[in-house]
Amino acid sequence: MSNPTAAMLVIGDEILSGRTRDSNMYYLAGQLSEIGVDLKEVRVVGDESDTIVAAVKALSAAYEYVFTSGGIGPTHDDITADCIAAAFDQHIDVRDDARAILAEHYAKSGTELNTARLRMARIPDGATLIDNPVSAAPGFKLENVHVMAGVPSVFQAMVASVIPSLTGGAALISKTLRIDRGEGDIAGPLGALAAAFPKLSMGSYPFQKDGKYGANIVIRGTDEGQIDDALSQLGAAFT
Amino acid sequence: MSNPTAAMLVIGDEILSGRTRDSNMYYLAGQLSEIGVDLKEVRVVGDESDTIVAAVKALSAAYEYVFTSGGIGPTHDDITADCIAAAFDQHIDVRDDARAILAEHYAKSGTELNTARLRMARIPDGATLIDNPVSAAPGFKLENVHVMAGVPSVFQAMVASVIPSLTGGAALISKTLRIDRGEGDIAGPLGALAAAFPKLSMGSYPFQKDGKYGANIVIRGTDEGQIDDALSQLGAAFT
Repeated sequence: MSNPTAAMLVIGDEILSGRTRDSNMYYLAGQLSEIGVDLKEVRVVGDESDTIVAAVKALSAAYEYVFTSGGIGPTHDDITADCIAAAFDQHIDVRDDARAILAEHYAKSGTELNTARLRMARIPDGATLIDNPVSAAPGFKLENVHVMAGVPSVFQAMVASVIPSLTGGAALISKTLRIDRGEGDIAGPLGALAAAFPKLSMGSYPFQKDGKYGANIVIRGTDEGQIDDALSQLGAAFT
Repeated sequence: MSNPTAAMLVIGDEILSGRTRDSNMYYLAGQLSEIGVDLKEVRVVGDESDTIVAAVKALSAAYEYVFTSGGIGPTHDDITADCIAAAFDQHIDVRDDARAILAEHYAKSGTELNTARLRMARIPDGATLIDNPVSAAPGFKLENVHVMAGVPSVFQAMVASVIPSLTGGAALISKTLRIDRGEGDIAGPLGALAAAFPKLSMGSYPFQKDGKYGANIVIRGTDEGQIDDALSQLGAAFT
């Protein structure tokens, strides 16, 4: 049985303009690998409603799980929640359960729950909330789409809230062999090995260090015995 | 006149599995901003032919420039060149001009130009080569798609080779004002300001430092006078 598939949608002009280096993709990729969910595609789009809606629809239809980051804060450019509602043709407004969470959070610090902050309680009908232990304002899940914050500390906390609810498959095992030869010398034997082990994925990641060429060969799969067999055959080919 | 649009396609299982943190997206985004090309979308896909071909077709049709990274080395999982050829229905084989570049490069180091290395001379008909001053093996441009390496040092060198050939627009100017207030307090005045300056893009990037909340407000546009006006109005609202 193959693992469930997933896609991520990163939302935010700041990533596309080069102002901010995204870290959420790398974080989510690692977390999903560990539980055996195969991240198959990531898209990064700006704060434009039509683009976000189209991407959500496409990814939701193509993959079992979708995860979004960004665009759920209190400012005018935070339009993700409304886009998700539009993508699934759901009504959206400030919802009582989300408002209660925000009211309790801001009451503690004596901060006014003004119109802007209330924007973070806009949740589509039918969505379930995602817990945010960092800054209270919840994410939410609608259909197969998990909507989370862009701020990395909040994103990571929300991923932790979501992970236990996912049905994973066999965890991906990954082992690496460093070979101090040019990638062009490795390619032939590696290609033959990949053909002999069709259930494993083999990647070659070249480096250059102190003027010498080498590559880290990464063999991935779910059957550790096969991975070890392949690794030892590969090692034998280069001794 | 609006700026030309662009998309990027990052190709590689190692990004999606969480093994490698991509840096090429961030680099390209910054370079394109400087010359006034608007990066509108990024997709990350794995080493799967059908997926790559579909993404290339979609992005090439939707944007003026497309840039790819990854999958042009000598190993069996380097399938990008063949996918680009397939996307544009072009013949592909080892091409004499690319072979000559590799032959000269490997002759210098006394390295055999074997079958695996020759794979890097597979260039679609009709493509023009992109110079690679780091490790010789060229990228190429076919239609509006620029095909470049995934190794960051090579990717960056290829981007430098490509940038002078692009027709940019007005460079994006970006100025930042730090406001030491919760984003929920900033959102109202910022929304009004964004409505008053429809040609500027305003983003709010919250942070938490030493237990205090604040946000960097980034105002972007091509008219520096307007940006300065907006910044001073924003500053006045929070003093």
